[in-house]
Amino acid sequence: MEQKKQLLINRVKNNKNELLEDSIIVEYPLTIFLNNNEFVTLLCSPTGLEYLIIGFLISEGIIRNKEEIENIKIDEEKGHAYIDIKDKTLFAEKLFGKRTITTGCGKGTVFYNVLDSLGTKSIKNNFKIGANMVLDFSRQLNQDSILFLETGGVHSCALCDNDEIILFHEDVGRHNALDKIIGEALLRDIKLEDKILITSGRISSEMIIKTTKNGIPIVVSRSAPTDLAVKIAKQFNVTLIGFARGNRMNIYNGINRITM
Amino acid sequence: MEQKKQLLINRVKNNKNELLEDSIIVEYPLTIFLNNNEFVTLLCSPTGLEYLIIGFLISEGIIRNKEEIENIKIDEEKGHAYIDIKDKTLFAEKLFGKRTITTGCGKGTVFYNVLDSLGTKSIKNNFKIGANMVLDFSRQLNQDSILFLETGGVHSCALCDNDEIILFHEDVGRHNALDKIIGEALLRDIKLEDKILITSGRISSEMIIKTTKNGIPIVVSRSAPTDLAVKIAKQFNVTLIGFARGNRMNIYNGINRITM
Repeated sequence: MEQKKQLLINRVKNNKNELLEDSIIVEYPLTIFLNNNEFVTLLCSPTGLEYLIIGFLISEGIIRNKEEIENIKIDEEKGHAYIDIKDKTLFAEKLFGKRTITTGCGKGTVFYNVLDSLGTKSIKNNFKIGANMVLDFSRQLNQDSILFLETGGVHSCALCDNDEIILFHEDVGRHNALDKIIGEALLRDIKLEDKILITSGRISSEMIIKTTKNGIPIVVSRSAPTDLAVKIAKQFNVTLIGFARGNRMNIYNGINRITM
Repeated sequence: MEQKKQLLINRVKNNKNELLEDSIIVEYPLTIFLNNNEFVTLLCSPTGLEYLIIGFLISEGIIRNKEEIENIKIDEEKGHAYIDIKDKTLFAEKLFGKRTITTGCGKGTVFYNVLDSLGTKSIKNNFKIGANMVLDFSRQLNQDSILFLETGGVHSCALCDNDEIILFHEDVGRHNALDKIIGEALLRDIKLEDKILITSGRISSEMIIKTTKNGIPIVVSRSAPTDLAVKIAKQFNVTLIGFARGNRMNIYNGINRITM
């Protein structure tokens, strides 16, 4: 499916109006049915849908590994995805109990314990990467995002090892782009414990909760983190880097994993 | 409460590391208790909390006007807000039924009918504004966002009449910034039917659903809209403008409300 569309628009420049064709990003509603129950509708870019679904279910704590998935069927035209998972119980409880996490937030007063309750442990890993390499990856992320250059409407996300970008996804939602990376890594048996995650988007608490739950030791953004994301990074020994652009970057935590 | 914090960070520039103090945006968890039931936790910037809560409840369809609110108490230190509304029934149903809307999406297969089901009517209003004025407002929005300049971590949103910006809010979430505007307008009895909404953030379907439900005829962004937002704008006769920066902008729908 197309990620962008051509559209007739009016461009006003210096108070003069011109009718022209322009690219616009597609926002695609994908309704997920989990064991035949309507579960959620994601608004996303229509690529890597299988990865998105799996990454989303992982991020939501619905599944923990790919063995829990029995079947996935996607009807792209309808925007429906049917996923069967082994655990047939507790559907309503899962749906209901997870609500507050999906709203872009933690579960009320236990917010600060979200990671604890999900069994996340401090990241012990001593994986290291050169500062120049981080900036190279950030530059590449920017250059590879043709869709952003054309439409201005997407976020990009990449997973890198010591040498190169190995996974790359774009989406209208920065959370979706990250979920696609996580889902693809899971399906293709790519370990996350020795990788770097680079995103064009801001790092809020939710973004770093997702990466930390999956054991990613180094998280890099081309834009800003929040104070809460830094707090979580410190608590779980995650290397958190922001504003990685050109020849500079800010290291908010975990400089021990960055070599000069 | 402070919207930003000072933090010691490592700035790496040209492969050299320097320890310095920098500003970082605060991400504040605010847990809303509705009629004594824990309802949701919003991750937000800690300003205009009362406006945010009311705007959020309006956007979620929990309340329709301020008369439905009996009491609001905010404990800033704990990050708790207690709201009593007149309607004591159907709490669970409201909480459950609204879930998919708050996840950044519509309710599954009925997504395209979300606006219909909420009783939104096509915007008839013929409010007009000059193209130059739109660009002036966009420039002002950018200049007024001191917090963005300092932290790079917020979105801003403004409500304008024919002459000037009358409401302005910033938040780590672009949805929150819009909810603060809607909440303040409601509390202060400011009509939305003859106003312009300007945002620094992208216009996804959810953003335009919020503005349309509240009858705002003109929506302007400094960045990109999605194709679905344009579709909704066309369906409900909303003027939708994107990339309003410098001396140019793209009009995706409703050019009849813009004078050259």
